[in-house]
Amino acid sequence: MGRLRVVIVGGGFGGLACARKLDGEPEDVLLIDAHNYHLFTPLLYQVATALLNPSDIAYPLRKVFRRSPNVRFRQALVTRVDFQDRAVWTHDGERIPYDRLVLATGSVNDYFGNEAVARHAIGLKQLDEAMRLRNHVLACLERASRTTDPEERREWLTFVVVGGGPTGVEYAGALGELLRLVLGRDYPELTLEESKIVLVEGQDRLLGQFPGRLGQYAARTLAKRGIEVRLSTLVQSADDRSVALSTGDGIRTRTVVWSAGVRPQDPLDEAGVERGRAGRLVVDDHLRVDGPEGVFAIGDAAAARGGADADLPMLSPPAMQEGRYVARAIIEETHGRPPGGAPFRYLDKGTMATIGRNSAVAQVRGLRFRGFPGWVAWLAVHIYYLIGFRNRLAVLWSWAWNYLKKDRAIRIIARSQADPLTDDLDETAPDGYSGRMAR
Amino acid sequence: MGRLRVVIVGGGFGGLACARKLDGEPEDVLLIDAHNYHLFTPLLYQVATALLNPSDIAYPLRKVFRRSPNVRFRQALVTRVDFQDRAVWTHDGERIPYDRLVLATGSVNDYFGNEAVARHAIGLKQLDEAMRLRNHVLACLERASRTTDPEERREWLTFVVVGGGPTGVEYAGALGELLRLVLGRDYPELTLEESKIVLVEGQDRLLGQFPGRLGQYAARTLAKRGIEVRLSTLVQSADDRSVALSTGDGIRTRTVVWSAGVRPQDPLDEAGVERGRAGRLVVDDHLRVDGPEGVFAIGDAAAARGGADADLPMLSPPAMQEGRYVARAIIEETHGRPPGGAPFRYLDKGTMATIGRNSAVAQVRGLRFRGFPGWVAWLAVHIYYLIGFRNRLAVLWSWAWNYLKKDRAIRIIARSQADPLTDDLDETAPDGYSGRMAR
Repeated sequence: MGRLRVVIVGGGFGGLACARKLDGEPEDVLLIDAHNYHLFTPLLYQVATALLNPSDIAYPLRKVFRRSPNVRFRQALVTRVDFQDRAVWTHDGERIPYDRLVLATGSVNDYFGNEAVARHAIGLKQLDEAMRLRNHVLACLERASRTTDPEERREWLTFVVVGGGPTGVEYAGALGELLRLVLGRDYPELTLEESKIVLVEGQDRLLGQFPGRLGQYAARTLAKRGIEVRLSTLVQSADDRSVALSTGDGIRTRTVVWSAGVRPQDPLDEAGVERGRAGRLVVDDHLRVDGPEGVFAIGDAAAARGGADADLPMLSPPAMQEGRYVARAIIEETHGRPPGGAPFRYLDKGTMATIGRNSAVAQVRGLRFRGFPGWVAWLAVHIYYLIGFRNRLAVLWSWAWNYLKKDRAIRIIARSQADPLTDDLDETAPDGYSGRMAR
Repeated sequence: MGRLRVVIVGGGFGGLACARKLDGEPEDVLLIDAHNYHLFTPLLYQVATALLNPSDIAYPLRKVFRRSPNVRFRQALVTRVDFQDRAVWTHDGERIPYDRLVLATGSVNDYFGNEAVARHAIGLKQLDEAMRLRNHVLACLERASRTTDPEERREWLTFVVVGGGPTGVEYAGALGELLRLVLGRDYPELTLEESKIVLVEGQDRLLGQFPGRLGQYAARTLAKRGIEVRLSTLVQSADDRSVALSTGDGIRTRTVVWSAGVRPQDPLDEAGVERGRAGRLVVDDHLRVDGPEGVFAIGDAAAARGGADADLPMLSPPAMQEGRYVARAIIEETHGRPPGGAPFRYLDKGTMATIGRNSAVAQVRGLRFRGFPGWVAWLAVHIYYLIGFRNRLAVLWSWAWNYLKKDRAIRIIARSQADPLTDDLDETAPDGYSGRMAR
């Protein structure tokens, strides 16, 4: 018998952790992703607010495995899985056979079926969205500065952030700083008083997965920084100049940022596998998809419990632990140990979120931090987990510069020309499993 | 009488130098540009080869004049000038009156009327082109790695660079390094031998504006690094899989990079002003456009001679000296000195070009450098002229990293989503004076 062929679909936190664990082992591993980089999503909001360069948080996947004897990378979109044939199919019609398949296909923005909101809101989940959002906000300031109609100026300078989870809270805080540092200093035509940031959250508190007091602290801190927090409020509709709220209020704005929900994505649409309530693939205690042979699912795409009563949250720590667990299971099988050892158990090391300059909330093994100590902890953890040595230094340098100079150096409105010559997979497709968008 | 209103159209080297010289003087200055940044074009090829981040060479124009008492910035496209009314009109229908007008509108790629080449080639003149080119080349490597047909693989891995001036030579050299460092190390599916870079030049030598021996040195150095140099050859046509050369040869390729010519652009199409042979605006010894009152033209857009027999080259040093000269002339007029002082004289401080790692050619006041000393001189001059302190450090850091680690850290295929919500001027318009493209 030859070497086991392991195909990992998705180079996010789960897929990458799995591939790294298999690096150097006696399996042939192929990691497939639609992008050529791993994205450090926890810092995406900093690209969206001109603090970091896109390359600071995007690490080339081929580089991770440059010296690997057994892990290869392919930039492609998996559009279909054939369990009978034990093969995946890519957007350009290639058939790639597997012995073990790891589905780590993550999640996309979920607009809960609201077409109007989906059309007008800007997501904050992918690198191209963060770049668009950076360009968009800076362009709004330029548009406002050219407008003499005070009503229209306020539209350009009103920013509605939907969703009070970590992404929404962190983005709203960072956007407040961007406005203060850039609008306040570089736009003699405008005043900060004309600008407004509104954070809209459906529940009655921010940061739902943190203890209540930290959520209250975040709300107070944001309010102190001039951000309007609207709890127990839903966005019902949106067009290019306004949003309508469930309270009956309307807000005139040119900017709706969506961080209110994500949903799992995977290429198993027609495969008839079982799904959990949120649409995540049901897996057993060993993270195996029920039914087909040799198929695992991890991360946002999988409804793993890891010993808890409910599905694990769609965050990077469970995804990474699941990826490593599956890798270990495959290695043990190769070494001839009987399959089905200890079930997957999730170890919760804590969660944290920043609320702009000098302030963060963190929960680590029962301890709660907030304010400056929380912020220092946040810095340390994020620097530590950033993938490459250079990326870490580049990020540290940007942070130090921005902190000391109170500046945003990357505030250029720049997007790339489209490239019809190479785009056979639409990397800037709107949300939904991108496989469906393949041309 | 109120303060003199000076409108400068274009924030390139000429317009920026003019505005900086007028900073703090008793005129009201408005600098207008279609982008919100000044672009350090001499390093554009390094963004295109994943050496630098876009933000390293793009400096926010508002930041330059943050503390200025009299210089303001407007992001807009000037589409028309009304000499009678002494006003410029922008893409969004705004009328901006002037007392003195400085046209510093630069140049765009010139495909000499060849539609097929214009459609299929990628230019190297604007930031969005450089970002596209970076994405494109990296995507070609990915496409090649997925292709088993050896013929098609070679197409993806053949890169044709048209134009043997500094841009073409520098880009070809840097692309060679990119392939060596990235293709050679990260793509086990590919071999360097399958790749090919062809530099096509119409004249019988490279670097036409340098002394002949430096051009020969550049050709030898490129050849030694595996780049095929084809002199006395023109590109006659192109489609998405090939180019046809004037020698009768065809090259199968998916990549044609255009650096073979630029032409001036300005918004005076219907104004009936006199133009030189190359289409540049004719100006007198004092850089005034003949006819209308109070209108100057500088840089690529103007056919200035500065004491020489022929029009000055379309390079940044003449543009900067012209910008400062015009600013001085306006200041002297404000101070009541009689107009028409000393005519503009150009001081040639030299030219230089790199040919990849450790090698450059330079000509400085009669002295010629080449090889490593030329490269060190090139480094020093470019770092010195890079505009902001942070940009200088960021670039130095990237260069040091890339030099020592022999790496290209920014090799991510990432473009921004389009933003229909703010795009009222098409920043990614194809070549031609962008005013015409305004929607």
